[in-house]
Amino acid sequence: MTIPVTRRRENTRARLLDAAAQVFAEVGLDGASVEAICERAGFTRGAFYSNFESKDELFLELASTVAEERLASVRGRIGEVVADGQMAAADPVALVQRVLDSGLDDRLDVLMMSEIRIHALRDQAFGKALRAQDRAMIASIEAIIQDIVDSGLFALRVDVPVAAQMLMVQWEGCMVRAALSGYDGEELHRAGAESLGQLVGLIIAPAGS
Amino acid sequence: MTIPVTRRRENTRARLLDAAAQVFAEVGLDGASVEAICERAGFTRGAFYSNFESKDELFLELASTVAEERLASVRGRIGEVVADGQMAAADPVALVQRVLDSGLDDRLDVLMMSEIRIHALRDQAFGKALRAQDRAMIASIEAIIQDIVDSGLFALRVDVPVAAQMLMVQWEGCMVRAALSGYDGEELHRAGAESLGQLVGLIIAPAGS
Repeated sequence: MTIPVTRRRENTRARLLDAAAQVFAEVGLDGASVEAICERAGFTRGAFYSNFESKDELFLELASTVAEERLASVRGRIGEVVADGQMAAADPVALVQRVLDSGLDDRLDVLMMSEIRIHALRDQAFGKALRAQDRAMIASIEAIIQDIVDSGLFALRVDVPVAAQMLMVQWEGCMVRAALSGYDGEELHRAGAESLGQLVGLIIAPAGS
Repeated sequence: MTIPVTRRRENTRARLLDAAAQVFAEVGLDGASVEAICERAGFTRGAFYSNFESKDELFLELASTVAEERLASVRGRIGEVVADGQMAAADPVALVQRVLDSGLDDRLDVLMMSEIRIHALRDQAFGKALRAQDRAMIASIEAIIQDIVDSGLFALRVDVPVAAQMLMVQWEGCMVRAALSGYDGEELHRAGAESLGQLVGLIIAPAGS
């Protein structure tokens, strides 16, 4: 049986992404050369460049995957919470704990996003691409928040775009601080959810306002 | 006239710190070797090591200096605002604009703090030292907030430690995002102060509560 070209290509792409994440974990973004990634994945440079234009493009995709997994998980869990009608009564911290899947919190993701930001601060083209990706993510967060507002469950004390930015910034910052304190896994999750819960508590307007 | 040893030592230290900041701006934290710093400052390795135990120690001091200048400036300006009795009436964003000296906002400082954090995430000993410095800074911020609360001008909707952490995290995060958007100087300052002002507006409890 021959594997269709499309699936072969997807497998190669997936293996290159995995290898890049592994190499990154060991030697950082600068150290993770195309050569090192290919060697780890067991592919040629030719295979790399028929899947990615550059190392930068690969890492942008890794960053994007981390964000998209998180957003998909949050959308799903908010849907559950809205459906079972418990949202309005819930304590904000408990709500955030429930909505943010702890299985997704990874010290290495924090490290990777941090190094990607540094690269973006020093490389104009990469910075531009990262900003575009970031705007798309903020737009997704705004849509999620808008849905919650439209459902009538909560009102906010700030505009939706302001809420989205504040929550995004608080989340990123708390995860970096928690990782700096040595947390990983469950502890990392709890630290992030705790801080975010407190902010959500401030952003939500009292019922009936 | 002979310059006293202490002043000569302070001058050497100051020149090494300046040189390190310059070299960092050009080649980043990893690239800023002791050798490169000494060459830029015009000193020998001997002069370096009689002032700093290591490159790590020098960069911790640079980071600490950035933070201390900011805190000193904030304390001074809050003192002015409290003294002229305008604080209670002020819009939070305008208040934050006034309290945060725009002259201190520098894209390179954002870059340096970001690279220092990456280093701390990967190097246990450095991470420990940075955490200690960070705890001291948060304690200073808590003291500043506590003074404002004690003065009776404002009440808060969260505890002082929570407020300090949230404000610190929001400030750092907004500065990174603004720098990522290409801002520097006045624009960078305005972006950070705007976001922080919105958070302050959420944290402050209504008068009489």
